[in-house]
Amino acid sequence: MWENPIFLLPGPTQVPPRVLRAMSAPMVNHRGPKFKELLDECIPGIQKIFQTKNDICLLTSSGTGGMEAAVANFIGRGEKAIVVSVGSFGYRFKAICDKYGVEAELMDFTWGTAADPQKVKERLQQDKNHEIKAILIQHNETSTAVLNDIEAISKAKGNHPALLIVDAISGLAAADLQTDNWGIDVVIAGAQKAFMIPPGLAMVSVSDRAWEAAEKINSQSLYFDLKAYKEFLQKGQTPYTPAISLVFGLKEALNIMLEEGLENIFKRHILYRDMVRQGVKALGLDLFVADDIASPAVTAVKAPEGIPAGEITRIMREDYNVVLAGGQQHLKDKIFRIGHLGYVQPMEIIAALAALELTLEKLGFKVTRGAAVTVAEKVLKERRD
Amino acid sequence: MWENPIFLLPGPTQVPPRVLRAMSAPMVNHRGPKFKELLDECIPGIQKIFQTKNDICLLTSSGTGGMEAAVANFIGRGEKAIVVSVGSFGYRFKAICDKYGVEAELMDFTWGTAADPQKVKERLQQDKNHEIKAILIQHNETSTAVLNDIEAISKAKGNHPALLIVDAISGLAAADLQTDNWGIDVVIAGAQKAFMIPPGLAMVSVSDRAWEAAEKINSQSLYFDLKAYKEFLQKGQTPYTPAISLVFGLKEALNIMLEEGLENIFKRHILYRDMVRQGVKALGLDLFVADDIASPAVTAVKAPEGIPAGEITRIMREDYNVVLAGGQQHLKDKIFRIGHLGYVQPMEIIAALAALELTLEKLGFKVTRGAAVTVAEKVLKERRD
Repeated sequence: MWENPIFLLPGPTQVPPRVLRAMSAPMVNHRGPKFKELLDECIPGIQKIFQTKNDICLLTSSGTGGMEAAVANFIGRGEKAIVVSVGSFGYRFKAICDKYGVEAELMDFTWGTAADPQKVKERLQQDKNHEIKAILIQHNETSTAVLNDIEAISKAKGNHPALLIVDAISGLAAADLQTDNWGIDVVIAGAQKAFMIPPGLAMVSVSDRAWEAAEKINSQSLYFDLKAYKEFLQKGQTPYTPAISLVFGLKEALNIMLEEGLENIFKRHILYRDMVRQGVKALGLDLFVADDIASPAVTAVKAPEGIPAGEITRIMREDYNVVLAGGQQHLKDKIFRIGHLGYVQPMEIIAALAALELTLEKLGFKVTRGAAVTVAEKVLKERRD
Repeated sequence: MWENPIFLLPGPTQVPPRVLRAMSAPMVNHRGPKFKELLDECIPGIQKIFQTKNDICLLTSSGTGGMEAAVANFIGRGEKAIVVSVGSFGYRFKAICDKYGVEAELMDFTWGTAADPQKVKERLQQDKNHEIKAILIQHNETSTAVLNDIEAISKAKGNHPALLIVDAISGLAAADLQTDNWGIDVVIAGAQKAFMIPPGLAMVSVSDRAWEAAEKINSQSLYFDLKAYKEFLQKGQTPYTPAISLVFGLKEALNIMLEEGLENIFKRHILYRDMVRQGVKALGLDLFVADDIASPAVTAVKAPEGIPAGEITRIMREDYNVVLAGGQQHLKDKIFRIGHLGYVQPMEIIAALAALELTLEKLGFKVTRGAAVTVAEKVLKERRD
């Protein structure tokens, strides 16, 4: 009966009704003038959200496809790279590098902490001969709910010529990322995060420096060969049939985002982060990461001693129609994650906190009813005043 | 004002309103029980359309991604394969093989003809040591509107142990393809063809023999590593976030297809083929391919001497809101293509033929008004009686 839950995942996110309506438009020819018009309207909007003048490649794939494209095009077989990892998506970058014969060195920070720019700086200073061709890092690590300081990483890189490749799939438009100002060569984003459209599109921005590197590399993948995307972009096309209905949705999502404005979007995500974190703390639960590195897109909460996180998410879903995410890999059942990115309203956060109070109570964890909600209301009210 | 044209491309196709409505359902967690239920409902339907009991991998990509997955997983670097090509998508298979270091021999048949099973047989008979590991071929070649006889190719292969890999992206469910009966190891299909959903999903069926071959091969692509799709399928998931809204659409499209029944779908496509071919002939135009190899999904028509095909498709679109496809590569402006697969009604074919009469007249090509329509009506009436 209750078809639409309170849907708080770190992607896919809820889709605004305006986007759903846009997606139901009649098909167009992806080699004809209407699709060109559509793409020509989308690209400048994407550039605004990316804060870049760089070229944008629009791929029909999940975000992982965008990550693979970044490795396939900008780092050659046998070349060295550093993967700065703070969670499971760092490992994914490493796995892709392994597939493509990139000699990737894993700089592995403990899950729940952020990347240390000083360590990155020291490592690059050792690289006197500039053998390291690329640094790969997550903007927002979805698995641990940590936001890396990409500006600091960029400063740590300094004049080292390695390309800076940032997986901003779950972070872009939830937290500030200044592609051009911070000198980021390649940025990867995904549709189903703060862009609020259903999954199936990845966006990749590419700097001139990155295109120069790509000239020397013969991408091992045809589907992810970004040079073809660049070439087809000139005529308002993609090399292979794109997910047209999602591009309809993207155009409308960009309208919504630009109406709200990037600064307001960032503020709204910080509000949600603070409502969730303070609300959860008021229930006596522990947060997985420290305040200064906490993600504005998703919050990771430790399950109380003796209660598996999976039980919490199950009861939230079954009894209250609130959808949260569990933990990944060794964090399964240790943490649960409350996504608060994209098309989320403040009162949905409050409702989810209320459901969490009732769920914990049912599982025998002592809570003061209304405690989380009261604190979240206070945060909301203060920001509005 | 007229938002929905008569849309006759060989993909993307028109999307049934039922599918559009299904696609607008609220998002679900791709790691939760609702997506598992959805996938569990889709897979048996896909298997029915593929006429197979083999495993189905559901990829978020265009059909080309499915072709790349087939090469990446089932043919090793340095191994030999034969690409049987009758048009531009044959060349695409070759290009993917080149990327992956597969030693692919191109068996190149003239564009507009079908693959000759006898030649395939002779080539395989020369291969005494069974060095050829795979045969790659199109079911329906979209660029030339030719239907290959895959059953005959399979017979020509006989007991040779090479895998038979068929790109059935534009052919599946428009023409018969008996995956299991004909012993096809890998079949690739695309969403935006006879499945009638927007582009963004590829489906790949994999035989036990193909999985055995895959065991010895380390897929060079992470995104297209089908072993991961097989593993995740067991728990009702895909390894990376799938295009969820398209999977909603797929489920409804499968309902529609199975309600109509495969036999009826095939008959309907043959009806459209014959209406179009006889109608076009009645106008004095030449068809690009012979009747016995003519595709039931798309018809290629030669532009009259002195009239570029691009002018015909432009006027059809601008004056009559009828969307057709042009020719590809060296066939650009030589042919135009009328797609008639998926969600097409007989009267749309008639209307398009009427628009073609008026368009040719405008371009100074002498036609008898009503000639194409009259013949198409006759074909339609005969099949109904």
